[in-house]
Amino acid sequence: MTMINTPCLVVDERKTLANIETMARRIAATGCAMRPHIKTHKSPHWAKLQVQAGAAGITVAKMGEAEVMADGGLDDIFVAYPLIGEEKIRRALALARRVKRLIVAADSLVGAQALSQAAVQEGLVLELRCEVDTGMRRTGIRYDRAEEVICAIAALPGLRVTGIFTFRGALLSGRPTHDLQAAGRQEGEMMAALAQRLRALGVDIREVSVGSTPTALPCAAVPGITEVRPGTYVYNDAMQIKYGLCTEAECSALLAVTVVSRPGPDLAIVDGGVKVFAADAPLYTEPYGFDRYGICVGHPGIRLTRLSEEHGMADLEPGEDPAIGEILYFIPNHICTCVNLMDQVLLKRADGTFAPMDVPGRGKSR
Amino acid sequence: MTMINTPCLVVDERKTLANIETMARRIAATGCAMRPHIKTHKSPHWAKLQVQAGAAGITVAKMGEAEVMADGGLDDIFVAYPLIGEEKIRRALALARRVKRLIVAADSLVGAQALSQAAVQEGLVLELRCEVDTGMRRTGIRYDRAEEVICAIAALPGLRVTGIFTFRGALLSGRPTHDLQAAGRQEGEMMAALAQRLRALGVDIREVSVGSTPTALPCAAVPGITEVRPGTYVYNDAMQIKYGLCTEAECSALLAVTVVSRPGPDLAIVDGGVKVFAADAPLYTEPYGFDRYGICVGHPGIRLTRLSEEHGMADLEPGEDPAIGEILYFIPNHICTCVNLMDQVLLKRADGTFAPMDVPGRGKSR
Repeated sequence: MTMINTPCLVVDERKTLANIETMARRIAATGCAMRPHIKTHKSPHWAKLQVQAGAAGITVAKMGEAEVMADGGLDDIFVAYPLIGEEKIRRALALARRVKRLIVAADSLVGAQALSQAAVQEGLVLELRCEVDTGMRRTGIRYDRAEEVICAIAALPGLRVTGIFTFRGALLSGRPTHDLQAAGRQEGEMMAALAQRLRALGVDIREVSVGSTPTALPCAAVPGITEVRPGTYVYNDAMQIKYGLCTEAECSALLAVTVVSRPGPDLAIVDGGVKVFAADAPLYTEPYGFDRYGICVGHPGIRLTRLSEEHGMADLEPGEDPAIGEILYFIPNHICTCVNLMDQVLLKRADGTFAPMDVPGRGKSR
Repeated sequence: MTMINTPCLVVDERKTLANIETMARRIAATGCAMRPHIKTHKSPHWAKLQVQAGAAGITVAKMGEAEVMADGGLDDIFVAYPLIGEEKIRRALALARRVKRLIVAADSLVGAQALSQAAVQEGLVLELRCEVDTGMRRTGIRYDRAEEVICAIAALPGLRVTGIFTFRGALLSGRPTHDLQAAGRQEGEMMAALAQRLRALGVDIREVSVGSTPTALPCAAVPGITEVRPGTYVYNDAMQIKYGLCTEAECSALLAVTVVSRPGPDLAIVDGGVKVFAADAPLYTEPYGFDRYGICVGHPGIRLTRLSEEHGMADLEPGEDPAIGEILYFIPNHICTCVNLMDQVLLKRADGTFAPMDVPGRGKSR
């Protein structure tokens, strides 16, 4: 057993590869393409394996992530975020020249106009997808105004509108739900119908891109949907367990922490707090109601109920008695934000050896 | 006006220096020493200025932070966290050889025994403080068992117990409170009384170290308290405003984000989410009840009520109409965890120029 220096995120290579292959196979069976979001692993290593498993390309949120992925050898990148600001547009134009395919995004006419102007000035044509809000009230053109705005964007020079996309997660009629089949179908059907209306208006919509890990499969099954963008499935987390999408054994990234204090029989303190556990609740906590910061593997009676910056306070049920110095493993609630705290993770290879692995996309929010 | 590439934490040099000087002067007036916790800025640059302003030394939580600070020229370091595990003890012994003064911590006999054994083996004597729990139910020897455990620790070879310490924050009789004077007094009086009892038992307690930013001043005023360890005051944040400890103008680190989407008249989306805002609630949210993720400077009607990883959703009251591309500045709720997300901050110098500044202590949780 390698000595693990805690706190540390331990990534199981075999399980991660299995997660990548399983999702690729399931989506392929629907005939839909897949463009995984790298926000979970933030690493070109896994992104390349996702492409090898059949992904059409990758999705990122920010230009900084796109640049890290391009540096790592990825050459078909969708930046699924409204591209706003001179500096970011300049970087997008530079990146468009050095990768095989860069797709940028807009959700407003004013945003698209700035992109159009810059592209024309550089003598480039940028491939663009328009983001549509299908109920999350986040970015995206309001669904009821989508035709009007997208037609205006499609008329701009220097841009080639090839698709529409949305992100809604597990919402049904705008409300959180456990009925992922119905949520995915609704999201897919709204987007497929919009794509048809846009085509009737003369906009050449080729890609209709939707979905998250929870809704990827039901979305992919909707006729007219061409692409899904799941991310979390690569490692999985406690949220995906609660959605019924994976088992504990399929969670491939575990946070290893050491018990540093046992103030009493019912309390253990571990050496990880907010700075290593993902303390962000999911956007909609209802009806999931997390009661703890992660699941302690093999110890359902160890409940991590409070976090401060460097401390995790675990309430112990009778029978749980971890010693000072003992390492505990937790499945984080939200693996994406957990990984974002790590400069490195520890890869547990299929042969049982361990190797540190950088997370070059960490913190690349610009 | 320099173009700020968002999301970005902008640190005002003049205000930060003023915060450092004001706290140093106030604590000095009580006759108490000060050993600021570097967990807020995580940077040797500010730590050295805190020492220049009169601090007796610095406090860190983890060995990784201690090493970063030693590399940056700090030579009197207290690691205020139970030191558990062979690897960390080995690093502490190595660091003890290269700085003027290293103080380590224990809150259990078993933890202290491992330190003792390693120190004896290396032919070193480690200076040690014992942590005591005064009501937070975090690390620390239970107050009612403190004499027994500390006397046993003090008898171990290779260790020199010179002090006791606690962290309780704004708790009064274990419950969150706004009465910081009473909370600080109670925390201080408990520790001063314990120190007296330990001295009567023959343990040479020289340092009685307490306090956080909220309770530093009332703690420092308690007879018998020799040292306080505030951290957050260096930048301040929305929590400190709610405690009544500072004004908005004294918050010296602001998160700059750009409006990237305006889906409707009552909603603006900014380009910072959980990955740049501190999404962790304080350990005890009652009775403070945060209703938003940060305070929008100059715009009380812009309420950042939802975050996802890269998106901040701001509800707009009538009269608020930020344009796409506009930069907004937010005071984060919890500046310490916000800084921990940043590889760099942008220093706004007293002369109005800007310079990137590394955060070498970021993520050093091991």
